[in-house]
Amino acid sequence: MIDVIKSCVNQFSNNLQFNYVNPNDISQLHQYFPSAHIIFGEPLTFIPFINQSFTTNLKWFQSTYAGVDAIVKKSKNNNYIVTRAPVFGQHMSEYCLGHIISHERHFPLLREAQLNKQWLTCSYRLLSSLRVGIMGASGEIGQSLARTCKHFGMYVKGLANSQQNTNEFVDKWYQSIPTTATFGIPREFLINLDYLISTLPSTSQTKNMLSGDVLSVCNGSNTVFINIGRGDIIDEQSLVNALNNNYITHAILDVFIDEPLPVTSRLYDLGTHKIQITPHISASSSVASYDIAQIFIRNLKRYINGESLLFVVDWKKGY
Amino acid sequence: MIDVIKSCVNQFSNNLQFNYVNPNDISQLHQYFPSAHIIFGEPLTFIPFINQSFTTNLKWFQSTYAGVDAIVKKSKNNNYIVTRAPVFGQHMSEYCLGHIISHERHFPLLREAQLNKQWLTCSYRLLSSLRVGIMGASGEIGQSLARTCKHFGMYVKGLANSQQNTNEFVDKWYQSIPTTATFGIPREFLINLDYLISTLPSTSQTKNMLSGDVLSVCNGSNTVFINIGRGDIIDEQSLVNALNNNYITHAILDVFIDEPLPVTSRLYDLGTHKIQITPHISASSSVASYDIAQIFIRNLKRYINGESLLFVVDWKKGY
Repeated sequence: MIDVIKSCVNQFSNNLQFNYVNPNDISQLHQYFPSAHIIFGEPLTFIPFINQSFTTNLKWFQSTYAGVDAIVKKSKNNNYIVTRAPVFGQHMSEYCLGHIISHERHFPLLREAQLNKQWLTCSYRLLSSLRVGIMGASGEIGQSLARTCKHFGMYVKGLANSQQNTNEFVDKWYQSIPTTATFGIPREFLINLDYLISTLPSTSQTKNMLSGDVLSVCNGSNTVFINIGRGDIIDEQSLVNALNNNYITHAILDVFIDEPLPVTSRLYDLGTHKIQITPHISASSSVASYDIAQIFIRNLKRYINGESLLFVVDWKKGY
Repeated sequence: MIDVIKSCVNQFSNNLQFNYVNPNDISQLHQYFPSAHIIFGEPLTFIPFINQSFTTNLKWFQSTYAGVDAIVKKSKNNNYIVTRAPVFGQHMSEYCLGHIISHERHFPLLREAQLNKQWLTCSYRLLSSLRVGIMGASGEIGQSLARTCKHFGMYVKGLANSQQNTNEFVDKWYQSIPTTATFGIPREFLINLDYLISTLPSTSQTKNMLSGDVLSVCNGSNTVFINIGRGDIIDEQSLVNALNNNYITHAILDVFIDEPLPVTSRLYDLGTHKIQITPHISASSSVASYDIAQIFIRNLKRYINGESLLFVVDWKKGY
């Protein structure tokens, strides 16, 4: 990523001073951070240093992630601009479709059969017969996911928190219901889904959006829940209940309230037939590094020219 | 499937007599087959009865499969029309893409990690960075597969036995080389492939097309071979050699020379890290039954009206 940035920034400005800081090297941080106007990096890594006022000059933080809750929730002040890097839609779409096909085509079962030298024919559903509900369908991830689901002919329901949404890949839109606590979800969105996929960020309104008995609406539809957004959309007890009560029949989870998921988590005890756990890898910043660097470069040009930045985070909304 | 057919055929002709025959009931076969003009069914099931001259009136056989080698190779005479049911492209595309994503995203490894309560992060390749070569890219299956590969941004090489091919989803076409024995494959097609996928039927020219040292051209590219066509494109010894010599690094096989794959097959001994074996389920006639019935109905209308049938098999070419 650094090479991409170096080669690009040299082309359009000689007045900028760039320092490439190793976050594990505290002396480098002391040397460069106090005078930094711009930081381009991982929120989780740098937010402690920003909070310790290493960076009193900070005007703009370009995140290497799409999810910036680590900054929005933890930053002691909000007197600088934060921009996101929304480049993960393709990555997460591949993760979701791979898992959906693996589930429909019984990949794990067939692997077992192979190990036992068994010829085990089993049926499957074609993707075009499936109904998927995407929470956060108007965002970059949701849009990419909807496009891929529609490529395979799935029926796509989209949930968003705005009234007007246009996306040719969503068959029907539903609006989340603002309440004093969390967003409410229209019952019609949740019923008759084969897959319910959350791409939502962690904000005060999405936290616990699926907690309690919300998923009981899915009962009887054999819904599979996929979470690639943030883990705190449902508390662990509610999730365990939803699986044990068969509100949902299976969960494929890439994000958790505590990461790495503690070995003591009850989620591990549910077994792979009920739950699949992956270690927050539906999208990787290092795999997407070229695209992330390009976003920084585009924004840097705009910053230098005094233009408004792209993908600016609303401190209040949290994304 | 029978319900779909019954409801459709009743609409457009009262002069046809339909009999729904259970192939396990020999008395039904004796009763209905000798006078049958048309048979709609599974080649493997009915070809013995056709050969035993139960069906001297037979004019047309509509297969419920796309691959009709069981008829073309085994039928004692060819004085009737055989039509295929090419409706499996979508099914096989899903199978392939699911397996590609599962392989790239290390699904089996992560399942093991989950069972061991391990948080095992690992990298992956985005599909848009991959190069796929499709053998049989001009057929219904190849075209559907190319479309899906292109949806994910893959670079698609297509191999076909005709000179002129148009398909917006294939980046570059290669022509197989007719020889006295099997089709030859241009070296340029096979090099630098991340995935080599065969969708080819079994004919005298495709048999052993990849046998011997053909796959040694792939050496060094970490090519994964996926076979959803027919098993006899490569003999077992050549396949084992190709994997043991690392000409290819992995194989995902849905079709075999002998099916069910005998428990004595050496393919089982290679282990799941080298090979994935699935029991000829990349496309299922029962899952596709509605679409297959529709093809029969369309062809039946044409037959009654004296029009040429769709998807007619060339006895000489074998597909």
